[in-house]
Amino acid sequence: MKSLSLAQKAREGDRLSVARLITMVENRQEEAEKELAFLHSYTGKAKVIGVTGPPGAGKSTLTGKFVKQWRALGKKVAVVAVDPTSPFTGGSLLGDRLRMSELTTDPGVFIRSMSTRGSLGGLAAATGDVIRVLDAAGYEIIIVETVGVGQAEVDIMEIADSVLVITVPGLGDDIQISKAGIMEIGDVFIVNKADRHGADQIVTALDMMLDLNPTENDWRPPIIKTVATSGEGIEDLVKKVQEHFSYTEKAGLLEGRKMQRTKNEIVNILKKRFEETVIDPAEAEGALDSYAKKVYEKEMDPYQAVDKIMKEKDR
Amino acid sequence: MKSLSLAQKAREGDRLSVARLITMVENRQEEAEKELAFLHSYTGKAKVIGVTGPPGAGKSTLTGKFVKQWRALGKKVAVVAVDPTSPFTGGSLLGDRLRMSELTTDPGVFIRSMSTRGSLGGLAAATGDVIRVLDAAGYEIIIVETVGVGQAEVDIMEIADSVLVITVPGLGDDIQISKAGIMEIGDVFIVNKADRHGADQIVTALDMMLDLNPTENDWRPPIIKTVATSGEGIEDLVKKVQEHFSYTEKAGLLEGRKMQRTKNEIVNILKKRFEETVIDPAEAEGALDSYAKKVYEKEMDPYQAVDKIMKEKDR
Repeated sequence: MKSLSLAQKAREGDRLSVARLITMVENRQEEAEKELAFLHSYTGKAKVIGVTGPPGAGKSTLTGKFVKQWRALGKKVAVVAVDPTSPFTGGSLLGDRLRMSELTTDPGVFIRSMSTRGSLGGLAAATGDVIRVLDAAGYEIIIVETVGVGQAEVDIMEIADSVLVITVPGLGDDIQISKAGIMEIGDVFIVNKADRHGADQIVTALDMMLDLNPTENDWRPPIIKTVATSGEGIEDLVKKVQEHFSYTEKAGLLEGRKMQRTKNEIVNILKKRFEETVIDPAEAEGALDSYAKKVYEKEMDPYQAVDKIMKEKDR
Repeated sequence: MKSLSLAQKAREGDRLSVARLITMVENRQEEAEKELAFLHSYTGKAKVIGVTGPPGAGKSTLTGKFVKQWRALGKKVAVVAVDPTSPFTGGSLLGDRLRMSELTTDPGVFIRSMSTRGSLGGLAAATGDVIRVLDAAGYEIIIVETVGVGQAEVDIMEIADSVLVITVPGLGDDIQISKAGIMEIGDVFIVNKADRHGADQIVTALDMMLDLNPTENDWRPPIIKTVATSGEGIEDLVKKVQEHFSYTEKAGLLEGRKMQRTKNEIVNILKKRFEETVIDPAEAEGALDSYAKKVYEKEMDPYQAVDKIMKEKDR
């Protein structure tokens, strides 16, 4: 009898196989594509929830409590903590913090960190692949958590069915939420550490910004106050997320959102493939450096350099 | 006698030819590459100064005064205002505001706006090409101005020999400068509207952040207070920029910076070419949509879709 493939074992819920597959995806191993192709037909059942917010907003604690609430409802939950390594934070340890919590011993919870290797486009593509693995492995709620609220996070959040944006009093107030793109992507807003001074001001500021940025549909993002350390507001948060799921399904938005997501995924994989087959080898072989030198010394212009690199690739 | 090409006329300083060439570059016309190839050997003389900062910081007024000061020193100056169209601002009008000023009548000044068409990678590549045109046309100081302080701006600023970061009191203070990447790219920091309350606090905050983010070399970015409306501090600003130019030359940093820039330019053109030859046509022909549908309906997986798109391109 033929032994089961990694993807088949992951499909049956084998945690070790899931972990190995994710590592293959992260390392951009070629064999990963075959396994992903097999798993693809089993995907599409999970709900993907994006969680984003600035460092210090209490994302890890909140996510921990959030996971427990979903577990209480009987759902299998996976968390993917994406850490775009920032020159400032030197990379955070979202996943590690979660892993140290009591969640680790729960067989219905799977936690995984991913960090930026190479390009951010590659990261978005890899995150999509990891979600596909977890979805096929039977995780019903997949939480994708990112540090910060930059363009990279906005790109990654395109993967989510529902996006939670966390804010917190005392971090520069409305500036943290006025960053480009953040108001647009939030489906539910959270004011965490709501027992602190200034929480109501943030709620008011968010409310005003939501008025200024009306969405194209009927969903008015609710603003939930939470105190993650005590668990206050978490039940309400899960309810609002469920309401958002129901809304998108009823409004027929889900299919459009998933189609757009699928399209973005294809484009991300296309770009990743171009980087892997053209740019990375040119860098590794020193071709980029030697052509940059020739262009700098005016032996050729940059377009001639590009032509040469493309031709070398075709051979 | 053969008539002169657009590039030859631009090379001789003909403003209309310069403007036409830039339009060709913006529209990604194929003929642009031939002209750029001709101009390449005449480039490398201009100094490129990047100017960035949040909306409302007074960039247009400051740039106007900055240009006049360089003119007073006898330099030919070009301004490229890059407006990454934001969902918030709906695109700004940097270039238009400048064009309406008295600078318009000065034949030694060339002003041009560029906006995002398609990808940001494409924008960075196009900005590089526009600078090459202006450089070859004899502009000695080329100012590249961007709205906002996101990743797109950081990418565009890689083009510059010297980067000025503008801050202003009352916009959330240190939050505006703590955004990822901004402290690293600034060679000179400006606190504009320095007659306003809170200017000294920003200077202190910047000073502290510079201590926290030491650079790899000996250049400690100076912090200049300006009041652009009255012209206060502009002379000092130009002096500091000149000092930075001298420093990079003496420290032998210039060549490394230019080589790195050339390399980035080649990578940007490679990515642009991939988008133009693969992604844009697939979008235009509806192939992306139809494959997204097939992947969504599980007729194929995303990797198979990518394979098909790549194959169709090779035919």
